[in-house]
Amino acid sequence: MLTDDTAALLRLILAGGASAPRRQLLEHHASPAAALAAGTRAWKDCALSDAQVAALRQDDPTALVAVRAWLDEPDHHLLGWHDPDYPPQLRRSPSPPLALFVAGDPTRLWHPAVAVVGSRSPTPGGRDNARDFAHALAAAGLAVVSGLAAGVDTAAHEAALATGGLTVAVLGTGPDVPYPHANAGLHARIAAAGAVVSEHLPGTGPRKEHFPSRNRILAGLALGTVVIEAAQRSGALITARQAGEAGREVFAVPGSIHNPLARGCHRLIRDGAGLVEHAQEVIDALAPLASELAGDLRTRLATPISGGHGNVTRRRQDEAHGDPDYQSLWSALGHDPTGMDQLVERTGLTAAEVSSMLLLMELDGRVATQHGRYFRNR
Amino acid sequence: MLTDDTAALLRLILAGGASAPRRQLLEHHASPAAALAAGTRAWKDCALSDAQVAALRQDDPTALVAVRAWLDEPDHHLLGWHDPDYPPQLRRSPSPPLALFVAGDPTRLWHPAVAVVGSRSPTPGGRDNARDFAHALAAAGLAVVSGLAAGVDTAAHEAALATGGLTVAVLGTGPDVPYPHANAGLHARIAAAGAVVSEHLPGTGPRKEHFPSRNRILAGLALGTVVIEAAQRSGALITARQAGEAGREVFAVPGSIHNPLARGCHRLIRDGAGLVEHAQEVIDALAPLASELAGDLRTRLATPISGGHGNVTRRRQDEAHGDPDYQSLWSALGHDPTGMDQLVERTGLTAAEVSSMLLLMELDGRVATQHGRYFRNR
Repeated sequence: MLTDDTAALLRLILAGGASAPRRQLLEHHASPAAALAAGTRAWKDCALSDAQVAALRQDDPTALVAVRAWLDEPDHHLLGWHDPDYPPQLRRSPSPPLALFVAGDPTRLWHPAVAVVGSRSPTPGGRDNARDFAHALAAAGLAVVSGLAAGVDTAAHEAALATGGLTVAVLGTGPDVPYPHANAGLHARIAAAGAVVSEHLPGTGPRKEHFPSRNRILAGLALGTVVIEAAQRSGALITARQAGEAGREVFAVPGSIHNPLARGCHRLIRDGAGLVEHAQEVIDALAPLASELAGDLRTRLATPISGGHGNVTRRRQDEAHGDPDYQSLWSALGHDPTGMDQLVERTGLTAAEVSSMLLLMELDGRVATQHGRYFRNR
Repeated sequence: MLTDDTAALLRLILAGGASAPRRQLLEHHASPAAALAAGTRAWKDCALSDAQVAALRQDDPTALVAVRAWLDEPDHHLLGWHDPDYPPQLRRSPSPPLALFVAGDPTRLWHPAVAVVGSRSPTPGGRDNARDFAHALAAAGLAVVSGLAAGVDTAAHEAALATGGLTVAVLGTGPDVPYPHANAGLHARIAAAGAVVSEHLPGTGPRKEHFPSRNRILAGLALGTVVIEAAQRSGALITARQAGEAGREVFAVPGSIHNPLARGCHRLIRDGAGLVEHAQEVIDALAPLASELAGDLRTRLATPISGGHGNVTRRRQDEAHGDPDYQSLWSALGHDPTGMDQLVERTGLTAAEVSSMLLLMELDGRVATQHGRYFRNR
């Protein structure tokens, strides 16, 4: 069963058209249900088009049966623009989507993340680099965001999962439609251990025009984007440009001048992207931004919960007391700065678990961090 | 037999110490002989040190016998700071040498040049890149400057010679001392077809401290420097830094992040060097600077010749009338812009010959150039 707010949000999504007026409508009313109840005059005040107004007036209760069914399944979520759990990085991007369908824990989207993208048919060396970078980023506690495509995306997701880290797949299809189909298994594993994200209704098939707009969400969710290998004209370059436009850091891995898939990376470097040889350079460059994001989370935790969608983060904070995993991590931490790798080894927890817990402990003031290493603050 | 000016200049070189006061002394007097005759008071006015003054006071006619013998050989030259043929690019560099010993035609140092430098033990791919870049630069009519070292330097000189282009070797030893010795044959071929340059007296053996200062001359003679492959700490990086300090363009060829010899290039790119995949990018970037240099040459040609050292350029201009090679080139030129490659093919001349002739014809106003292609202007 859907709440009134979720039902109202779905009708706003279904209205289609420009996103900004609908985001404004949500900002001007206490809830999606209130926004929908406000009526034509209020909709037009927020610059909704005639087509959008006409669409909102129609209420067909039989529409979206499949969507409603998808949302009823466990750990399937809809995050609207009004939702305090809407990812803050994406909120600050130039053209944020009205809402996100999320399979997996939505608080994972608050995690400091790096997009790792590149060619669908990389060289063997490019595939290795994708794997190495994703492994190192995940091991350092950063979420690895990518697009579930073949090649570099797949290698990055797989390496993050193998490292026990967080990974987020942003789809150009509905959240329940793996594309390419060969990645159906990977899709399921990401939904279970990380998050699968889409702005499209469940059931939406692959459409060429959806992929560039998918890339803007990918870039928007991440603090920075690393391009591993990319041809001169490629989706990865679009993602990189959108990351740059979103004010995010863009990094590119150089390669031999005889490798056509290094061309796109070289182009980006000429245009100002950071040349990176090691994942640690990305981690170091993003550390200040990750701290900013922690500030967002701190603010979010201090905000009273409203509605039924914003309680996951708060629940996790409550867990931070007395939980045996937290006690194990506390024991593993010393007063000397300790790397994520060692903490994972000492606790037997995954990097994703350790880094989530460390973030909460940092916000509590119990743990401090320096150059990506952690130590007790008390 | 040496002229009085050459003998005086040799005594100034032999005085050693800081170069700037001795350059100033030459600027304040009509000739080296006059500067030497001016005496202690005049020398001290130009801030020569006591040690320099003491050295200048001693005149041992038996000194420098070997140097005098070297200068007596055909096509061996000494270009002093006072000389109107002193290369203008080098004159504008931060720390120009007081004088240059040159084996080969000194006007070749006025030719628009690019330094191609890199590791003494490059990878096979790096060696190929050195060869490809030097070939393309020479074929486009640019002189290739390098340091006669093993590895990248050797590949660059060889490729320029094989292309029939100009190449200039700048030595950290005396002009007659090939280093490494394995390059003695290459040294002789460069002296014959291009120029070998050193600020050190003939007979000076290899000394570690001379090589970084050699690099400043290398960088100073060139409009830009291309680094092919270089380790993190290497002579090529010193040359590149000196090129940057001299206000010259620095280019670096990227490579695989797993190639340790790409590290130095990547470091340069991070520090602002231009990332280049093709020699044409270097040629395009340097075209405006090459035009500036042509302006210098135009001024030089309009200047009355003084002394015995400045007549080579003028002689070449005189050749530009009626010479069969010039007539063949004139026939090969059309009113449609034509590339250097085609001109070489049509005339049977070398790229070095064609580009020297084109430069003079441009100065005459008979030939115009656009995007590195040439056409009749009349």
